[in-house]
Amino acid sequence: MSARSDLTKRKLFEATLRLADRQGLIGLTVDEIAAEAGVAKGTVYYNFGSKDGLVDALLRYGVDQLAERLRTGAEAEDPVRALESLVDNSLEFIREHRGFSQILVSEMWRTPGQWQETLTLLREEIISIVRGLLHRIDEAGRLPEGVRIPTAAAGLFGTLLVVALDWQVFQPERTRAEVRDSIMLLARGLAREVGTHPS
Amino acid sequence: MSARSDLTKRKLFEATLRLADRQGLIGLTVDEIAAEAGVAKGTVYYNFGSKDGLVDALLRYGVDQLAERLRTGAEAEDPVRALESLVDNSLEFIREHRGFSQILVSEMWRTPGQWQETLTLLREEIISIVRGLLHRIDEAGRLPEGVRIPTAAAGLFGTLLVVALDWQVFQPERTRAEVRDSIMLLARGLAREVGTHPS
Repeated sequence: MSARSDLTKRKLFEATLRLADRQGLIGLTVDEIAAEAGVAKGTVYYNFGSKDGLVDALLRYGVDQLAERLRTGAEAEDPVRALESLVDNSLEFIREHRGFSQILVSEMWRTPGQWQETLTLLREEIISIVRGLLHRIDEAGRLPEGVRIPTAAAGLFGTLLVVALDWQVFQPERTRAEVRDSIMLLARGLAREVGTHPS
Repeated sequence: MSARSDLTKRKLFEATLRLADRQGLIGLTVDEIAAEAGVAKGTVYYNFGSKDGLVDALLRYGVDQLAERLRTGAEAEDPVRALESLVDNSLEFIREHRGFSQILVSEMWRTPGQWQETLTLLREEIISIVRGLLHRIDEAGRLPEGVRIPTAAAGLFGTLLVVALDWQVFQPERTRAEVRDSIMLLARGLAREVGTHPS
């Protein structure tokens, strides 16, 4: 992807996010998106083939960025500390990309949805990162008995997404550290000694 | 509300939910809703004034039903057992009313949203029930240190909603009891002795 087409694509992504925020994603037309981005309609078709192609690319682009942050968070040597970083990095991403996160939460469980197939793949990409980390916590002997890793990973991802949106919409005065700590408290069922690791 | 107008309203609610499932809530028109419900367009205006009035009434109607289930769940004498019933009853409601729950999750954190004001009130109605129960758990000396009740209540409600939708969409083969137990495991940070109460 050349720098120039990269720029055009980003412009179209940003325009789509702004419109989705105001009027939802489903009824949007290529005309509206092109006008909002200040490009010709043909530019949308040239780059993405269709509106669905554009939304599909937007979802992949956003989730790749989120996954990158989660992976970075999950790198810490101590696995419980890594969970804390993963939570913290997700909160940071969702605060910076609220429109995108709102789309994820709207579309992820809508069936039949136009983007269900892509979202199913993307959900798996994110959840596999969380799952890998829970396995490390398990190997360190710190996963409480009875926790089923696939379920816990899916639950934790959903929780992160909605708690972060709830924070941004209804409690914006709270700091990211406060929200992270409250998620870690909620997640105490997932790891022994959360909050008691050496600092 | 007479039995007859009650029936008409339900018919319109059901039609709106079916359409919302297919094409989202935002772009829907009164024409489409009336056609889907098999009533005259004037019936919609007579009963609700406008499409926004209809959606507003639908949100209130659905959340009242959900709140009723939560209250029933929260009645058990042992507060931790009451939490378990509350979780169980929510899962039952969300399974039975997936279209409605999907709308809640799509609209709750969308700002500015047409129904934001109503949703803010409804969110408070639900969360106050959860909060009341967490206070009872606290009074029974079973709330772990550091848990802030308002935050925990908001987090638990969001978690319930998305874990239940995730179950219905991606893991429908699991039983309600399994999902309830996994949420209770996740929520161990919220109450001492979860899962160890006498049965």
